[in-house]
Amino acid sequence: MTPIGHVSLVGAGPGDPALLTRKALARLRRADLVLYDALVDERVLALARRAQRFFVGKRAGRHALSQQEIHAVMIRAARRGRRVVRLKGGDPFVFGRGGEEAQALQLAGVPFDVVPGVTSAIAAPASVGIPLTHRGLASAFFVVSGHDREIFAEAIGSLKPNGVTIVILMGFKRRAALAAQLIEAGWDTVTPAAIVVDGTLPHGTAWRGTLGTLTESTAEFAANGPALIVIGKVAALDLTSTVQSGEADTTQTTPDLLSRRSR
Amino acid sequence: MTPIGHVSLVGAGPGDPALLTRKALARLRRADLVLYDALVDERVLALARRAQRFFVGKRAGRHALSQQEIHAVMIRAARRGRRVVRLKGGDPFVFGRGGEEAQALQLAGVPFDVVPGVTSAIAAPASVGIPLTHRGLASAFFVVSGHDREIFAEAIGSLKPNGVTIVILMGFKRRAALAAQLIEAGWDTVTPAAIVVDGTLPHGTAWRGTLGTLTESTAEFAANGPALIVIGKVAALDLTSTVQSGEADTTQTTPDLLSRRSR
Repeated sequence: MTPIGHVSLVGAGPGDPALLTRKALARLRRADLVLYDALVDERVLALARRAQRFFVGKRAGRHALSQQEIHAVMIRAARRGRRVVRLKGGDPFVFGRGGEEAQALQLAGVPFDVVPGVTSAIAAPASVGIPLTHRGLASAFFVVSGHDREIFAEAIGSLKPNGVTIVILMGFKRRAALAAQLIEAGWDTVTPAAIVVDGTLPHGTAWRGTLGTLTESTAEFAANGPALIVIGKVAALDLTSTVQSGEADTTQTTPDLLSRRSR
Repeated sequence: MTPIGHVSLVGAGPGDPALLTRKALARLRRADLVLYDALVDERVLALARRAQRFFVGKRAGRHALSQQEIHAVMIRAARRGRRVVRLKGGDPFVFGRGGEEAQALQLAGVPFDVVPGVTSAIAAPASVGIPLTHRGLASAFFVVSGHDREIFAEAIGSLKPNGVTIVILMGFKRRAALAAQLIEAGWDTVTPAAIVVDGTLPHGTAWRGTLGTLTESTAEFAANGPALIVIGKVAALDLTSTVQSGEADTTQTTPDLLSRRSR
């Protein structure tokens, strides 16, 4: 009988390597094979010391591997007895096609587990002082992907305008069109809006404006890093510390977090 | 001049202590004072080895401290030069009144930061095989608190029926009323629904049914632990591994995760 391995669908968190969970760290350290997406920090990848690492994400608009090929690689490796980590930015079950991967593993009878991660949908806004809920401003939030016009239209079609906070992941490049879609659906042009780029990272930045001015935000960001959009009253908040303290840097300097390796 | 301390608003994650982030662990280890809520695991609290620990949450329907008193304690301790961790279940900015605490600290000129956590809104459903988004089933999700009838009514009033996945936190005891409110708002009684109790913990369980049968789920759970409700097509999924592997237990046995101390 062939030894049976294991697949973990692991969330790499929102950017800051210190926001990796202890469980994700344990999975990475024991991994034989890591299949990773774009937006996974190389300091996180470096924690998988003994693993072969393969990029299987999307670069320059092209997928390195198709979704079916990713399934096949995971299943084959596990059947050969390897410990596989499928590493995804943020949380594996938030727009990561993690559900499809879990389904494929279940169908194949391969042992697997899901290690949730800190989602950028919540952590990136928090890192620039935006809570998604706030007493008197928002009592619920709505998370949607902006990468596809029709999927976005269908999702926001389930929402009545000018209500709860909306977080749009993967919508930066299409922000002008997305804002226009929301305005057309009845959202006020003066609704506060924010763009968070490289949230949770030291160089993270935020643009703040309104739904109406969202399209004017072009020049300010190179936005090579991950970016998300927050729409709603809370987007105007800036609940960050105005006083400096040495504390914030202490976890960034954990030695193994800073041990970089080339991919 | 008085030495100035620091306050961290820290997410303790969804239940499993291994889902604590490395940054949260670093904050706990350095803390002088930890102010914690209900639902924070004592194995997480025990990581704050050198800290005084005070329960400031709600027990048996009564708050140990008012929100204003919590603000005052944090500010006073930081002004005395202490490192304070304000430890909340899940993520501090998801229905945790973390925004209000950040605002109070900002106004007081006390240095603070926010350490996001893995939210139970995503991780608890994932632990019983429910992804909040799934190709063909749900392209967005909506997170709301069920603790207050009017706030819930207002929030779901912003949603058109039978669209995206809804996650209801803090709604277990009111589930019959919440289901009735949704049905009255136009949601189909046959919409899949799930209740997740003690999500991410070894003894976590899930009930699955529909919006219409949600009220019949009473007897099955003692539900002393945290519970949340998922409404929508994805609630019928069960993407958990059908094959066992030793892998899942390895991080649970990390020695310091198992060092229990009494509170």
